Amino acid sequence: MDSISPILWTGDSLRLLDQRKLPGEEIYVEISEPEEVIRAIADMVVRGAPAIGVTAGFGVALASQTVINKSHEEAVAYMKEFCSLLGKSRPTAVNLITVVDRMLKVIDKLMPYESMSQALIKEADNVQNETLVSDMNMAELGSKLIDIDSTVLTHCNTGPLATSGYGTALGVIRRAWELGRIKHVFATETRPWFQGSRLTMWELKRLGVPATLVVDSAIGHLMNQGYIDCVLVGADRITANGDVANKIGTLNLAIIANSLGIPFFVVAPVTTLDSQLLEGTEIHIEERDPREITELFGESISPPEIDSINFAFDVTPNDYIDAIITDLGIVKKPYINSIKDLNEYG
Amino acid sequence: MDSISPILWTGDSLRLLDQRKLPGEEIYVEISEPEEVIRAIADMVVRGAPAIGVTAGFGVALASQTVINKSHEEAVAYMKEFCSLLGKSRPTAVNLITVVDRMLKVIDKLMPYESMSQALIKEADNVQNETLVSDMNMAELGSKLIDIDSTVLTHCNTGPLATSGYGTALGVIRRAWELGRIKHVFATETRPWFQGSRLTMWELKRLGVPATLVVDSAIGHLMNQGYIDCVLVGADRITANGDVANKIGTLNLAIIANSLGIPFFVVAPVTTLDSQLLEGTEIHIEERDPREITELFGESISPPEIDSINFAFDVTPNDYIDAIITDLGIVKKPYINSIKDLNEYG
Repeated sequence: MDSISPILWTGDSLRLLDQRKLPGEEIYVEISEPEEVIRAIADMVVRGAPAIGVTAGFGVALASQTVINKSHEEAVAYMKEFCSLLGKSRPTAVNLITVVDRMLKVIDKLMPYESMSQALIKEADNVQNETLVSDMNMAELGSKLIDIDSTVLTHCNTGPLATSGYGTALGVIRRAWELGRIKHVFATETRPWFQGSRLTMWELKRLGVPATLVVDSAIGHLMNQGYIDCVLVGADRITANGDVANKIGTLNLAIIANSLGIPFFVVAPVTTLDSQLLEGTEIHIEERDPREITELFGESISPPEIDSINFAFDVTPNDYIDAIITDLGIVKKPYINSIKDLNEYG
Repeated sequence: MDSISPILWTGDSLRLLDQRKLPGEEIYVEISEPEEVIRAIADMVVRGAPAIGVTAGFGVALASQTVINKSHEEAVAYMKEFCSLLGKSRPTAVNLITVVDRMLKVIDKLMPYESMSQALIKEADNVQNETLVSDMNMAELGSKLIDIDSTVLTHCNTGPLATSGYGTALGVIRRAWELGRIKHVFATETRPWFQGSRLTMWELKRLGVPATLVVDSAIGHLMNQGYIDCVLVGADRITANGDVANKIGTLNLAIIANSLGIPFFVVAPVTTLDSQLLEGTEIHIEERDPREITELFGESISPPEIDSINFAFDVTPNDYIDAIITDLGIVKKPYINSIKDLNEYG
């Protein structure tokens, strides 16, 4: 398979595979202005919680190249302001904030004579490398949870495009498929942005994994008809009690799977855990432009001036989740304890 | 409000509001060839179980105009063949078959000297008028089930466009809104055909009912966040035990509403009951062209040559349904008895 590399650091610029154009066109956007990184995240040139984190790391590195002629104090002040804006480019994924905090720590520890840029590029590189390693760990651990010859259902996109590594839920799926544990994948199209039809089906086709696309509404029918052995999804933020914010529609999968006795697994690295928040009600759910729902390719598909709400995420209460597969281990109920143990001893 | 008249009989032709073009354009298709009626139903120029029934009635009337110069025997033979093809134009809605059977009965009872055409036009007119009357009955009965100041959630399109009358689920909703029982409606967009965004939002806007459009995936979030007081949907076929075939995604609503303790109501005339079938597993679920999922406006939104399944309907087991609102009364569990009573004494 051709490798899928959504985020490439060239040394002095950032090249992002424009995920809005897939699968029709594989176009890289070359970014050399730090402010463009903020816009690229907000406009979803790049998306997926871990990939947003990696992009943010390189965004900070890019910004540091613009302060070379400034004094250390001026440079630090500019960088902190940039980091603050970058951290707000999307509100729900915690990885963005975690990575920005990591970069800020590097900035804080620097001595005035050190090269800020070199240190930040190294840290951004670390973030990207660690993402791949944690993806591989989740794939190994998670694939063992899948029964031989399973047919699985997944939502949104959680492959290399979403992490810049091997993938979270889709990483588990491709590894389980390599091991002969998965025979077929059903992928939801994932309205309004069609991450499933555009990105997941593109990745699965490249990987050679047998897959069928369905509309989001078909999940109940698929599960009730016995097509599905388990459900695997990613996460954008997980609170201390195991509540999971993820792409809108995840909660539907969780409630229906739970009601029908089908295992429901979340796959996410520990960097997605936000122990600052006790439960999911505290997570800020992004509402995006309603035109993502009312228009397609710039053409209106609904009457003019109607009201529409475009929730980008929902929160799945921990009770519906059979296991959370992290890079440091698989955790189960009660999550308030198992997640605490993971953070302390993981 | 302007009246919404999706099916008009002109005296010698059928005018159908082309629902594929809404809401952008309000165009009527003038049909004078009977075979075009079959195509119009299959291609969804007209859709919605009751509206398909009304269209089928006029389709048979139209066909009878082409046999005027034939002998009675030849005319009857042609009409029966036409009815057989017409009955297969879409497989899931029972109203189509019921109306075709009604028209066949008229044909069978005719004396050779009677005008077949006149009798069939009258019967098709009856079907359309009865549809309006039964819609009004459901609206009156059903609106009383809605608590004052409710916010309701509906799926697909069940208004005048779907019945050529007042609507089924949307008939209850507009009547309850007139009575001050409903304060707000959430409508799902209803992939892949966007009946919600294109048709339901268009109808609700014309009616002046406050409504918000969401993607199908948002139903769990809306219900779990406490936005929704009850769910109302239509039906394409209801079996003797109360299992309900309806637009794909209905089962999701039913399972989630049930799991969260939110009332889930089905609104359908008794003509939607199919007592020939004991339970939902016997219903033939239509699978439509996968390009309805993989393409939009003729443009591909997924990689070439991927696999996709386009289930048009799903089956909601009776256990998830709090009440079925019919034109002859509201029935509740156990449906096997209440539906039988309705058929016998309703």
